[in-house]
Amino acid sequence: MTITPTGIWKDLEQIREKSPLVHNITNYVAMNNTANALLALGASPVMAHAQAEVCDMVNIANALVINIGTLSDPWIRAMAAAGARAKERNIPIILDPVGAGATEYRTRTARELLQTASPSIIRGNGSEIMALCEPNQDKVGVATKGVDSSSASDLAIESARALNKKFGAVVCITGKTDYIVSQEQTRVKNGDAMMPSITGLGCTASALCGAFAAVNPDYHLAAAHAMAVMGISGQIAAETAHGPASLQVNFIDTLYQLSETQIQDYLRL
Amino acid sequence: MTITPTGIWKDLEQIREKSPLVHNITNYVAMNNTANALLALGASPVMAHAQAEVCDMVNIANALVINIGTLSDPWIRAMAAAGARAKERNIPIILDPVGAGATEYRTRTARELLQTASPSIIRGNGSEIMALCEPNQDKVGVATKGVDSSSASDLAIESARALNKKFGAVVCITGKTDYIVSQEQTRVKNGDAMMPSITGLGCTASALCGAFAAVNPDYHLAAAHAMAVMGISGQIAAETAHGPASLQVNFIDTLYQLSETQIQDYLRL
Amino acid sequence: MTITPTGIWKDLEQIREKSPLVHNITNYVAMNNTANALLALGASPVMAHAQAEVCDMVNIANALVINIGTLSDPWIRAMAAAGARAKERNIPIILDPVGAGATEYRTRTARELLQTASPSIIRGNGSEIMALCEPNQDKVGVATKGVDSSSASDLAIESARALNKKFGAVVCITGKTDYIVSQEQTRVKNGDAMMPSITGLGCTASALCGAFAAVNPDYHLAAAHAMAVMGISGQIAAETAHGPASLQVNFIDTLYQLSETQIQDYLRL
Repeated sequence: MTITPTGIWKDLEQIREKSPLVHNITNYVAMNNTANALLALGASPVMAHAQAEVCDMVNIANALVINIGTLSDPWIRAMAAAGARAKERNIPIILDPVGAGATEYRTRTARELLQTASPSIIRGNGSEIMALCEPNQDKVGVATKGVDSSSASDLAIESARALNKKFGAVVCITGKTDYIVSQEQTRVKNGDAMMPSITGLGCTASALCGAFAAVNPDYHLAAAHAMAVMGISGQIAAETAHGPASLQVNFIDTLYQLSETQIQDYLRL
Repeated sequence: MTITPTGIWKDLEQIREKSPLVHNITNYVAMNNTANALLALGASPVMAHAQAEVCDMVNIANALVINIGTLSDPWIRAMAAAGARAKERNIPIILDPVGAGATEYRTRTARELLQTASPSIIRGNGSEIMALCEPNQDKVGVATKGVDSSSASDLAIESARALNKKFGAVVCITGKTDYIVSQEQTRVKNGDAMMPSITGLGCTASALCGAFAAVNPDYHLAAAHAMAVMGISGQIAAETAHGPASLQVNFIDTLYQLSETQIQDYLRL
Repeated sequence: MTITPTGIWKDLEQIREKSPLVHNITNYVAMNNTANALLALGASPVMAHAQAEVCDMVNIANALVINIGTLSDPWIRAMAAAGARAKERNIPIILDPVGAGATEYRTRTARELLQTASPSIIRGNGSEIMALCEPNQDKVGVATKGVDSSSASDLAIESARALNKKFGAVVCITGKTDYIVSQEQTRVKNGDAMMPSITGLGCTASALCGAFAAVNPDYHLAAAHAMAVMGISGQIAAETAHGPASLQVNFIDTLYQLSETQIQDYLRL
């Protein structure tokens, strides 16, 4: 599976042209940034979480992103219903298991969604991906600390392989290096060290997977392209940032203007 | 009905002086930006959605803004209760029917609020305003795509007229050109093409209608003045923006500092 | 109790080194900014509000921050459960009584949390602190206007003393001058006049109290250090801000980079 600047650019052009509707059932912290990142990318975001409407929204959506960052029971029921409908419609489903491993509630919910929603792509940090596997495939201690990763992304590769084998999902582990794991494995080394200091940037990464998967039926490539665009935009944004808040502003501005030349110049695999 | 820079400036001075309390029952995505826009304008925002307190909050508020962007049943009940209390107190009520037409849940809720809350001003994009009307007055196909408009604002003018006739509300259709429709019709042509790439800016427009209606009992003028201030601030903000995130930052900063001279220089009807 | 630049710097170094996990049950408006401020400071924020998981989250947290800014019944139950668990674990508990006095629901909930959660630190504006006391210790009229203070911070000092006597909590009244009140009293005069025009900055102040209290068992000092860091960062941020939105961006960037020299140069007691 080869990631090329041309491949990334083609997907980005498709998103800007078709403006796919990405339905997000996501957390309160990241909603605003997620919506702005999708708009800046060229997609059309919508947030809806009531059981009374999620299926209707899935019916007009081109991708569904489920993020468990600020869970409660009514939201879990809506996630299950939306996931089931998205599966029937065969649109891509992205699962972001925020904080899996930190509480039993999150771990259990994420695992149930693996079964019921059959995600096309799972995007999480090292700790979260390891927490989804039971028994732990990586034979290393997992001690999730809230929603921040306590493990390097490469430590979770075995867990990612096991999840892919069992559920068929492409697994995207983000960190200093991003790994996209299905039957093949891809590495993306873009990004900036200050990015983890912006809240919800992982959630944004998952939402971008939704937009790319909406235009590229090869979900492994879609996830890899999304991570490349995230990392490249973050790197360019960091060049003129003075801290995490100006990095976030620059990141969205960069996403909005990202050019083929920038992708060619910055891509680091 | 004539919109003049002097009229706009007078309202803005009143808002800055009296700092009206604007009670918002709004969506999770736009809450932060909405509150910041109201503060920058000089108003005092408050967000409260529990049925146990919405009536008490309406009792001390100078305007009520109801926005259905991220609905659920308990919020709908609170919206109805708050709307009824605001009607009794005779304070201005603004309805923002976010995503009406996208799901039956939103369309139905928006229509019920038209009946129960008797909004003073309805502010939406072209698709949303058309979706509120049944049967569709504009005889054009409405296919709302999530929360982004799929119709130009001028296509919704007939729907706006019908809504005004039936419910008495001033209808404010925003888009490339904004139309304020009651028994008269006003046009505001300010704004910047990048504004739709910021999430929740329509919600901000509705909240600003609340602040202007709190100081100007002529709701047609209040809505027009709010749209002029939105558009002018967006235009000035765009002059130094590098993308939608810096546009949002500049927009709030501009609102905070907006001068009479800027209103005179930029107003475009 | 003496506040020194060295003392503030030591705490800040501890936060950056240990990255304490601060569990926030807070309002929708301020969640994103609060999380970003904690990350910029060097702490690790987590937001969780489901009754099914709050106790598990408290079990791994180093501080709990309870903020009643956008209340509803299920959240109140979760706040009580989390507070009780945090008390058992003896970790610091910060209470932010947003809008106490504005509605009976908020006043009652804040007072109940005083009893059940036994906060280590209460952080509010003048109106809110006065509203917590009954009968009002300050013998001045309290007329809370939504969530913005209608009283200067010094008017609430007697109320703060009474609250400290009754509940043992350190009380932190923020305003033009900040007062930290326990058996002693400390004054912090840093800050900028534009700060109240940013929504949720009071909520951020409360969250920062949580991070400082997680590394400094002297909660009076912890609160004073947090207020000094808030005020100093706000002042530095204001030097290059053009309005409240760029002030917010600069504030987070400044927090991220704050140096011992800046603390020495700017501290104003």
